[in-house]
Amino acid sequence: MDSDCSPTLALAQALVALPSITPQDAGCQDLIIARLAKCGFHIESLPFGDVTNLWAWHGNESPLFCFAGHTDVVPPGQLHLWSSDPFTPTLRDGMLFGRGAADMKGSLAAMIVAAEGFIQENPTHRGKLAFLLTSDEEGPAIDGTAKVIEHLQTCGQKIDYCLIGEPTSTQQLGDCIKNGRRGSLNARLRIFGKQGHVAYPHRADNPIHHFAPTLVRFCNEVWDQGNEYFPPTSFQISGIQAGTGAENVIPGILDLQFNFRFSTELTPEIIQQRVIAMLDQGLCNYELEWHLSGLPFVTPVGQLVTTTQSAVQTILGYEPVLSTSGGTSDGRFIAPTGAEVLELGPVNTTIHQVDECVAVDDLEQLTRIYHAILCDLLK
Amino acid sequence: MDSDCSPTLALAQALVALPSITPQDAGCQDLIIARLAKCGFHIESLPFGDVTNLWAWHGNESPLFCFAGHTDVVPPGQLHLWSSDPFTPTLRDGMLFGRGAADMKGSLAAMIVAAEGFIQENPTHRGKLAFLLTSDEEGPAIDGTAKVIEHLQTCGQKIDYCLIGEPTSTQQLGDCIKNGRRGSLNARLRIFGKQGHVAYPHRADNPIHHFAPTLVRFCNEVWDQGNEYFPPTSFQISGIQAGTGAENVIPGILDLQFNFRFSTELTPEIIQQRVIAMLDQGLCNYELEWHLSGLPFVTPVGQLVTTTQSAVQTILGYEPVLSTSGGTSDGRFIAPTGAEVLELGPVNTTIHQVDECVAVDDLEQLTRIYHAILCDLLK
Repeated sequence: MDSDCSPTLALAQALVALPSITPQDAGCQDLIIARLAKCGFHIESLPFGDVTNLWAWHGNESPLFCFAGHTDVVPPGQLHLWSSDPFTPTLRDGMLFGRGAADMKGSLAAMIVAAEGFIQENPTHRGKLAFLLTSDEEGPAIDGTAKVIEHLQTCGQKIDYCLIGEPTSTQQLGDCIKNGRRGSLNARLRIFGKQGHVAYPHRADNPIHHFAPTLVRFCNEVWDQGNEYFPPTSFQISGIQAGTGAENVIPGILDLQFNFRFSTELTPEIIQQRVIAMLDQGLCNYELEWHLSGLPFVTPVGQLVTTTQSAVQTILGYEPVLSTSGGTSDGRFIAPTGAEVLELGPVNTTIHQVDECVAVDDLEQLTRIYHAILCDLLK
Repeated sequence: MDSDCSPTLALAQALVALPSITPQDAGCQDLIIARLAKCGFHIESLPFGDVTNLWAWHGNESPLFCFAGHTDVVPPGQLHLWSSDPFTPTLRDGMLFGRGAADMKGSLAAMIVAAEGFIQENPTHRGKLAFLLTSDEEGPAIDGTAKVIEHLQTCGQKIDYCLIGEPTSTQQLGDCIKNGRRGSLNARLRIFGKQGHVAYPHRADNPIHHFAPTLVRFCNEVWDQGNEYFPPTSFQISGIQAGTGAENVIPGILDLQFNFRFSTELTPEIIQQRVIAMLDQGLCNYELEWHLSGLPFVTPVGQLVTTTQSAVQTILGYEPVLSTSGGTSDGRFIAPTGAEVLELGPVNTTIHQVDECVAVDDLEQLTRIYHAILCDLLK
């Protein structure tokens, strides 16, 4: 394929060349605005703090279909580890290399080219076609999608269908789409014992020994069975620390950090109550701090799922599996408004790594899939 | 009591005034040599490395009774925390304050004054009365008592009874004597798992979760029941560490440090075999390093125990309890030669602390007890 012939590849290259490390947009949205304005989109720039956001729409009826995504990328890390400069889009062996090629400037290019084609073919399409873009998805995500959604709700705008371009494919393009994400709940736990000399253990209370049986109960606990859309809730300890560094001192304090990835079968409150009950049962003297990163959300099988699965089947010849695994996404801000939210994008094996890349062919196929979805929902 | 009238107090003060921080002797042994030589002791100075050691003896027959001890002291720490200068012996409220007053320059003074009196009364006593002193008991203890014992074995000298002046008393003088010490065995354990993202636990192997059941088995294990002289062997974890600091990363490695204080019912080899069997049973992938600090030793009830208990009973009116608790001592080098080894000294509540002190009355009573033991064994 010659890159001169592919508008999606050309746009992806132009976006990758802009070093938009969170929360910088580096001109990506200006470039996109110029393209969308040219084919009749209304443009609303919505900066909050140092974050650049865009709401753009074409048409004024219902249903409202929205492409959502982010122009920011994670930092490239150590430059010398890259085979080519991360912000110089480079073609090699049928792949486009560069930071953001897969997460998610390739998807943005495919969405825009698909929308341009669709509007050219259907200038008076039904419903409303919109873009919701932010430059802070990889960062704190406070002044990004969440704020735009607040603004839309204030204006009475309700998204019916939202397709996010996150790189959801695992082995080949379109093999996996996400119809939800698990919730993420972090905790910091401090177990108090009594410091002492190892030669006199009866005068001390070793918090490691005291907590050990409760630790096993945490690790063995079946938190739920998951459900149709979610795997069982998982519990993982990410850190544990105790000790003064001296061989002959029983430590007085044990610190732990742990995380729940939880399904819609549980709430943070239920998890917290169960953790506290287990600590109390273990007669632990403790302090506990919680931090909720995101609630779980899910889009059950319905119009958007069916349309998307059908589009992938038509273009690629196989049906994608539905999944809610992996980290969280900006879908957590959109799903609670009642929208059907789905994520579909390129293969994710190189994202957040050196030599991030996307297959040039996949950019073309992804453009066709997005175009087919638009035709099905708004034609 | 007037300090002018008490030779034990005067000698203790003179020794405390010499800042003999390990391995420095600071003239303590010269002072002691002058005293012992004056009443007919043979003197053998045995310096090894930067450690000053003394072997001195009076008489040439069997049995060989030896007072053992150390002239070195632990550092005073922050001087401003002391009520008076640690190397300026100070009398206050019937106590002698100063670094080493209780550990163990007070005992050394009592031993020397007791020996002087005994030899004056019994110039042709039976057996042999000796002193084994070192300036490195509080330090690495490599060039101290261990080397002197090697030298004595080379010369064919065999100690029958050894009384060490370590501060063994807990509430009041003579309430506790040590007839042995537990062994001490340290280990560093590294459990290998597989690092990963908390959102994908099936791709990782969390070493904390993996090791948790084995940790409980270690904590619950009854290593032995102890015996007549030893409490049950104790196991204590002194440190545990895992985690990258990131909330969303499953750590790949778990580090632990632990210590056994073990009785004569176990050997280091048996403990090591049992630990390895438990790790293997838990299917752990691990590295393990051992460091033996000291083997256990014990002097069963016999001539020296009976004599010492009787002397305390006569002078103080109550019988001391036998104990093998607490840290280790230089007795670990002497007991393996076949000697009966006992430790008896002042109250240990202030040792290794600021404002270390010993009761002036206790110095006098300790002198009488040591004198009574000499009379019983060598008169």
